[in-house]
Amino acid sequence: MSDCALCQDDGGLVLVRHADWRLVRALDTPAFPATYRVIWNAHACEWTDLNPEQRERCMDVVARVEALMRQHLQPTKVNLASLGNVVAHVHWHVVARFDWDSHFPAPVWATALRPIDELRWQAARPRLAQLDAALTAHWA
Amino acid sequence: MSDCALCQDDGGLVLVRHADWRLVRALDTPAFPATYRVIWNAHACEWTDLNPEQRERCMDVVARVEALMRQHLQPTKVNLASLGNVVAHVHWHVVARFDWDSHFPAPVWATALRPIDELRWQAARPRLAQLDAALTAHWA
Repeated sequence: MSDCALCQDDGGLVLVRHADWRLVRALDTPAFPATYRVIWNAHACEWTDLNPEQRERCMDVVARVEALMRQHLQPTKVNLASLGNVVAHVHWHVVARFDWDSHFPAPVWATALRPIDELRWQAARPRLAQLDAALTAHWA
Repeated sequence: MSDCALCQDDGGLVLVRHADWRLVRALDTPAFPATYRVIWNAHACEWTDLNPEQRERCMDVVARVEALMRQHLQPTKVNLASLGNVVAHVHWHVVARFDWDSHFPAPVWATALRPIDELRWQAARPRLAQLDAALTAHWA
């Protein structure tokens, strides 16, 4: 699909490149630094365009990302979503939410409720780096 | 969890009531009449609070809802999400999106881009009813 952004580009900083999927950290969500995406490599528009075995493998990755995210960041809540209205290529968002983040408890796509707390995100940087490392190591 | 809305209430119009989960159609999303929720009956905050076998069963339901939604509504895109920032009790949103809906291609939680097209939703009513019936029949 030559016009599909996720066929042409990685979609973020690649942490794991598997034969069937890749795990990236988003670089385009400044209010939510702990945003990861599990992207199916082959072009598929809808979740049910994958077969059951592919879906199971993809969700295993999503669950593992969530588990490591919880372990390293202790977020208030983890948000999972597969939308694809703009880029209709299967990808799961896994986002760590904190009760102090700019939008909580609203979804990340809603209007911000408060300014980004740069100091708290800065303080979280070591743990964010640990999570990146743990994710990379898990599939190494 | 006496203070959890999804422990106290069904969370919508119940179409299927299974031992472990229920399928409801949302009644609180007027802009998105084709919004379904797969709700895990037992209280669990995060997706990874379910064990792998429970997650697989839950996602099988989500996928089946998506498949029947595609068959009956032919939406532009299906949106899947498990957020739970307000009600931290595992539930999946399965939402049929259309390129003419009030928010497309923005997420349903973003600011509307245009008015609700009541006439088109009214025209879709027979298919929405067919989808309800097909979902109910599938697990009957």
